[in-house]
Amino acid sequence: MSIKNSKIVVSTTASLDILDITDEVKRCLTENHVAEGTVHLFIPGSTAALTTIEYEPGVVNDLKKALERIVPEHISCAHDRKWGDGNGHAHVRAALVGPSLSIPVAEGCLQLGTWQQIVVCDFDTRPRNRTILVQIVNGR
Amino acid sequence: MSIKNSKIVVSTTASLDILDITDEVKRCLTENHVAEGTVHLFIPGSTAALTTIEYEPGVVNDLKKALERIVPEHISCAHDRKWGDGNGHAHVRAALVGPSLSIPVAEGCLQLGTWQQIVVCDFDTRPRNRTILVQIVNGR
Amino acid sequence: MSIKNSKIVVSTTASLDILDITDEVKRCLTENHVAEGTVHLFIPGSTAALTTIEYEPGVVNDLKKALERIVPEHISCAHDRKWGDGNGHAHVRAALVGPSLSIPVAEGCLQLGTWQQIVVCDFDTRPRNRTILVQIVNGR
Repeated sequence: MSIKNSKIVVSTTASLDILDITDEVKRCLTENHVAEGTVHLFIPGSTAALTTIEYEPGVVNDLKKALERIVPEHISCAHDRKWGDGNGHAHVRAALVGPSLSIPVAEGCLQLGTWQQIVVCDFDTRPRNRTILVQIVNGR
Repeated sequence: MSIKNSKIVVSTTASLDILDITDEVKRCLTENHVAEGTVHLFIPGSTAALTTIEYEPGVVNDLKKALERIVPEHISCAHDRKWGDGNGHAHVRAALVGPSLSIPVAEGCLQLGTWQQIVVCDFDTRPRNRTILVQIVNGR
Repeated sequence: MSIKNSKIVVSTTASLDILDITDEVKRCLTENHVAEGTVHLFIPGSTAALTTIEYEPGVVNDLKKALERIVPEHISCAHDRKWGDGNGHAHVRAALVGPSLSIPVAEGCLQLGTWQQIVVCDFDTRPRNRTILVQIVNGR
């Protein structure tokens, strides 16, 4: 067994972005010639998160609306009052969704469901370059 | 070190199901003779999720109600308007709870709390057969 | 490759506690001389959870308020009606946030964002000693 380290970089906008990175994760597998094992994904940063979803505009929009409803942007945020950066809601959303995800690999393929994609959620209020760390545990 | 691959299959109903799979995960450990290591669990599919909870009818019901309150079934879902499959809320709930979980193993036992069980949440609106992928990293 | 096992113990109060354990996790890395690999964290127990956040009083307070709003303490809980321990909301909050977290390590450092800390959320209504299990996969 061994661990291969890769990374994925994406650019996001000032609004709530949900981006599909499934193809980039697959590319990491191919480049590292890993057929059996586990992919551990992690996003450094406290205003972004990782999860899986069917990457279809309707569902993606529903998830955005749900997060805006659960943790509204306009709530009085203690963080914003202190730091004035207006992204307190982004921190709370990120903590709820979570920064890490582990996905099995078999016969060279991510073992996702047919309609299941890996997504980065960027909750911050300014454009960012986000790096997702990809650790591939080669089971062979 | 090595990785052992197992799977667990459960059948669910058309309503929100929360099923205890702790015993099945323990069986995977026993069958693979793993005493020390880590179990990585993953559920393929975009309308189901994994977490842990005290598997007691009251708490399980409270979690169902909370999810129904946080992401109501009746909200106007962009996904449903487009695809007409009426399960937009299931996708959003699954993305919030998340598809993966990692649990340590020591002396042949899952290191869960006394009242903590591993559960599959199936949010879909039709009965499904769900496969949970179990990867056991043998630490020896 | 090998797995090193450590643990972190923290004491919590009767209210909703969010505690920064980043330094303790770093200490586990140092003590085990792991420079490259992955840290898998898990909290046994069904009324606590792990996530990451910027550990700044404003944001921490915002997260507490959000959890109290999403899963209110005063909701009629089936669990409480049966067991009378008054912590049904704690179970539901813990199941939503989740008990496990995996973080990559490179050059001896946790690959967290600059403002991102690892936190334990204790949702229970009485003081607890909480043990967090730390599994370090040494990638070398």
